[in-house]
Amino acid sequence: MTQVFNFSAGPAMMPKAVLEQAQQELLNWQDQHTSVMEVSHRGKLFMEMITQAEQDFRQLYAIPDNYKILFLQGGARGQFAAIPMNLLNKKGKALYLNGGHWSATAAKEARLFGDIDEIDILEQDETLQVKALDLRDIATQYDYVHYCPNETISGVEIFDIPDVGDTPLVADMSSNILSREIDINKFGLIYAGAQKNLGPAGITIVIVREDLIGNARPATPSIWNYAVQSKSDSMINTPPTFAWYLCSLVFKHLLALGGVKAVEQRNIAKADLLYQYLDQSGFYRNKVAKANRSLMNVTFTTDNDELNAKFVAEATACGLQALKGHKVLGGMRASIYNAMPIEGVEALIAFMRKFEAENRG
Amino acid sequence: MTQVFNFSAGPAMMPKAVLEQAQQELLNWQDQHTSVMEVSHRGKLFMEMITQAEQDFRQLYAIPDNYKILFLQGGARGQFAAIPMNLLNKKGKALYLNGGHWSATAAKEARLFGDIDEIDILEQDETLQVKALDLRDIATQYDYVHYCPNETISGVEIFDIPDVGDTPLVADMSSNILSREIDINKFGLIYAGAQKNLGPAGITIVIVREDLIGNARPATPSIWNYAVQSKSDSMINTPPTFAWYLCSLVFKHLLALGGVKAVEQRNIAKADLLYQYLDQSGFYRNKVAKANRSLMNVTFTTDNDELNAKFVAEATACGLQALKGHKVLGGMRASIYNAMPIEGVEALIAFMRKFEAENRG
Repeated sequence: MTQVFNFSAGPAMMPKAVLEQAQQELLNWQDQHTSVMEVSHRGKLFMEMITQAEQDFRQLYAIPDNYKILFLQGGARGQFAAIPMNLLNKKGKALYLNGGHWSATAAKEARLFGDIDEIDILEQDETLQVKALDLRDIATQYDYVHYCPNETISGVEIFDIPDVGDTPLVADMSSNILSREIDINKFGLIYAGAQKNLGPAGITIVIVREDLIGNARPATPSIWNYAVQSKSDSMINTPPTFAWYLCSLVFKHLLALGGVKAVEQRNIAKADLLYQYLDQSGFYRNKVAKANRSLMNVTFTTDNDELNAKFVAEATACGLQALKGHKVLGGMRASIYNAMPIEGVEALIAFMRKFEAENRG
Repeated sequence: MTQVFNFSAGPAMMPKAVLEQAQQELLNWQDQHTSVMEVSHRGKLFMEMITQAEQDFRQLYAIPDNYKILFLQGGARGQFAAIPMNLLNKKGKALYLNGGHWSATAAKEARLFGDIDEIDILEQDETLQVKALDLRDIATQYDYVHYCPNETISGVEIFDIPDVGDTPLVADMSSNILSREIDINKFGLIYAGAQKNLGPAGITIVIVREDLIGNARPATPSIWNYAVQSKSDSMINTPPTFAWYLCSLVFKHLLALGGVKAVEQRNIAKADLLYQYLDQSGFYRNKVAKANRSLMNVTFTTDNDELNAKFVAEATACGLQALKGHKVLGGMRASIYNAMPIEGVEALIAFMRKFEAENRG
């Protein structure tokens, strides 16, 4: 069997070393002769594990002490609801920056709970790019400003953190959390579904500044009330213990690699390799402006849909999985999250060269 | 090492055969050379798996076609909120039968969303028992009646389904789902967190009669809106794929054992063995009336707290894990869900005999 590389946009590949450890100890965790998924979340060993996991995550992302870290259920889409429930509480209005499908979906969900303004931040000419934004003045009228710094469908990433003055900035980092260093202090709240860079689907991390906790609307479900979950160590109900355990292994794995700084260098190297190949090819095209090209999701296309379909089918047969682009855009998408080794990108490029040679008109 | 038996109240033990299969295919699912937790939930193989899982679950529980089955995130406590959001929509009032900690907690959460009446259904004399209930008349004023047929802390189970006439009956079966045959037609909605009888923590099953879907209040989060999730096959967002996969293996495992009828017989045999031993012993006591003794959670105590603590410590050292009772009640609790083999109960009784002989005054 050829080595397989999985370019799925999410649930995405996990570090192989993490899966191997999970496999090895699946029936006997910590010498307990029982699985980690069979033990009480309030037991000593489980509590020690999650305490260490929080420390590791704080270290990885340099998270200041005045931020709480919550491990919740419901995915990013759960937070699409939980965020207005918890934060839309003073001015009664929030601003959502629309940079693509996910930020637009977040705004739509938030409208169930309050008054949401939306600004389109993309402009399309030769390439797709993010407009220069001047938000400091208008931000003052809102309880928070929300954006999604990496849009997986288009492969657009926003590297400059929007300046919204003292208004809390809220970011959906589901698809780029822990992929590069960021200054947490510039954010009021960061959230992420796990299934791209953190662990398996089914657990959601929320990093929230303490002063934003405690003013949830009365009809906020307990499991999403940041004050309730913060007081109970994210255990107001039984947490997704196995997913949490896998996140803890991913954190240790990333620390062993050298932390987020080292991970960022690897991610830049992988993305550069692929974008450079795309740019010198006249056969494939990426349509995103260089300044906004995602490190995580690289979209590309050939001249026509038929050829794209052929590309995906042949790549799959060669062990390069899940390269089909999102149905909204068509074409191809290579998701190269933290766990994708550079060998996967190299194998993809080798295949792309071969496919180009065989199919160039 | 002595064989270990895990009596945890939840997350609880899983069938060993299921964990072994999960271990074996953790890095290579369906010959894909990738983990089931790394593949898209919209991929063909994953969709086939969940379709089969629903069929198996329908078969196990004889679920009629006019009930939808949803696989959600958030646990039973998430449903404590989702149920009033979705069902409290005509009369604006619901009735909660209070039979212990969990049903009381469900009522407390529901009060965040509407007008909730509560009836205490327990009576305590020599033993703890459930009152005879006559609810047909009063039920008519409510949108639904909620109860929890098995309370894990006290070990009280309600075997007779309350007669509430045409008012929808809602049951939290987190701790006794698939443990014995029931007539689904008597319920409007059944829900259960997975972590006792279905799979790992982090996935929640909702069985809901179709006519109850579609009248959620406007401010209902999409991931808990039964109409939205029903229309999107429980995939309005990325589901907890690995937990869903494990549930699918548990369903297959239970079918191979002979289905719920066979499982019920095993559960009765296990519980009878333990209760009979308790009743003939003058050393241990169970305080629940025979008619309400849980098949799933068997609570017992010695004469004093010191002896209880000694019991738990020595049992743990003998490989009988997690027997400490809930802090509210003290004493001991043996949770003997579907996955507990009768050998576990036999080992527990053998230990109890020995401990009694050594410690009887």
